[in-house]
Amino acid sequence: MTSEAITVLGLGNLGRALAEAFVRGGHSVSVWNRSASKAAGLAATVADSPAEAVAASELVVVAVLDQQAAQQVLRDVDVRGRAIVNVTSSTPDQARELARWAADNGAEYLQGAVYAVPATIGTDASSIIYSGSSAVVERWQKALVLLGKVKYLDADASRASAYDIAIVAGMYGLLGGFLHAAALARANGIKVAELTPFLLSWLTDLHPALATFAGEIDGASYAGGDSSLAMNQSGLAMLIGATKAQGVPFAALDSLKALVDRQIADGHGEDSLARAVESFAGSSASPAGAG
Amino acid sequence: MTSEAITVLGLGNLGRALAEAFVRGGHSVSVWNRSASKAAGLAATVADSPAEAVAASELVVVAVLDQQAAQQVLRDVDVRGRAIVNVTSSTPDQARELARWAADNGAEYLQGAVYAVPATIGTDASSIIYSGSSAVVERWQKALVLLGKVKYLDADASRASAYDIAIVAGMYGLLGGFLHAAALARANGIKVAELTPFLLSWLTDLHPALATFAGEIDGASYAGGDSSLAMNQSGLAMLIGATKAQGVPFAALDSLKALVDRQIADGHGEDSLARAVESFAGSSASPAGAG
Repeated sequence: MTSEAITVLGLGNLGRALAEAFVRGGHSVSVWNRSASKAAGLAATVADSPAEAVAASELVVVAVLDQQAAQQVLRDVDVRGRAIVNVTSSTPDQARELARWAADNGAEYLQGAVYAVPATIGTDASSIIYSGSSAVVERWQKALVLLGKVKYLDADASRASAYDIAIVAGMYGLLGGFLHAAALARANGIKVAELTPFLLSWLTDLHPALATFAGEIDGASYAGGDSSLAMNQSGLAMLIGATKAQGVPFAALDSLKALVDRQIADGHGEDSLARAVESFAGSSASPAGAG
Repeated sequence: MTSEAITVLGLGNLGRALAEAFVRGGHSVSVWNRSASKAAGLAATVADSPAEAVAASELVVVAVLDQQAAQQVLRDVDVRGRAIVNVTSSTPDQARELARWAADNGAEYLQGAVYAVPATIGTDASSIIYSGSSAVVERWQKALVLLGKVKYLDADASRASAYDIAIVAGMYGLLGGFLHAAALARANGIKVAELTPFLLSWLTDLHPALATFAGEIDGASYAGGDSSLAMNQSGLAMLIGATKAQGVPFAALDSLKALVDRQIADGHGEDSLARAVESFAGSSASPAGAG
């Protein structure tokens, strides 16, 4: 029986889904969007300005295009006593800056990074990583779980954004690999829907190996292991050759092989594949140049 | 109470693990390896030649360096009446060729692709995809499950290798993304072991979306969906900028973005990200050239 007021600023695909989840949860929802027509069909009070929307609720959820838009929307708004939960994508520096602005203006600040598509907001397939004010998480726990699993990191508001960059980078690795696998399947007359269960099963089986790699990287200790750099150099060379022969090369493999090659050139061929992470350090000029 | 004879040709890390699994399963195992010292400590009969090893058993499992080595090992050996299970990595063409040779020489042929590291052979984390002779799978089912889950595709011996190229390409996408995520975490003072559970949880949540993409690709039907090319172009551009700003760029992202860019340039920005697979077709000259 919740009926606390909640404000949502921004009604793009994500903001709209968040507002709908709060409405379903029984909250009294106020919304503002640059174009008010986006609120059509939503059981919420449509405010004429960000200031009016923020005045309506203690909890203010911000889901706009980018962090610059978030700053513009909040500028000149009286946020004293408000709990600002900003789920707009942002860099660590941007999140830190807005958190400082909030503190200077008497508001609590929580940065969120959303792992869901709009259609899965509020389901088990949705989770949001937060960092910043733990008081906001405690006070608004019941409202936040309406959006998805709540994963709170720590009091540093930039932390969620730092996690986010890394997680999204990992996601695009998976997506690029999937698209390449799909192209190769098609080249061999295999239905992608038939390949995918086999692929996903193997990728899931690899998760423990990734956890092992994580420990090796944290300890900068790469001796031994089941998957050496030399084995992977040979495997990548074979794969690159085979994909070219099939007319379906993908330069992302060359970029990865360059990371592996550099460590082997430095004499670490028998070390774990995890050591390839060391090729990123100090390599900002041309990380794949050796490929 | 199995005690049927099984022969393993090749005692590299994989072959040795396979032989050990058969020994544990109660089989009478014969082995051959170019250097016999690799058989030390193995409860198996060490043959002096491939021919002698093949003569000892109806089931002959081949696990050597590459398909060329497999052909050399089997050349001039009498394989009549044998069931050859070749788990050596091979291209579809190579598997087809060796299957034809086996048929010409009176043997059944089954090609396998192993998804395991040597340490997980025979555990739930091991599976082997097979194609070729279904008679071999039926006759030797109990022996094959000693190695890992048996996933039989169809009678075309090249099929397992075609799946394998695609699955390994997908795996390297995941691995490259993981290494990049790890490098970004380190750049932000985040322990990779703390990041990894969040990353793997989100990657697992994405599996249903990949299954949806698979259906879109098979149907070449990309209208709508939760993840448009335009959204991903914008997301990739932000991510590439953020990773550069953090001193941890990775050219694999540019290669992926080039696939997305090409479809958008062709007017498909509102279509599903899955359409990026179409950028591979006819793009063998410079798949990432537009990045």
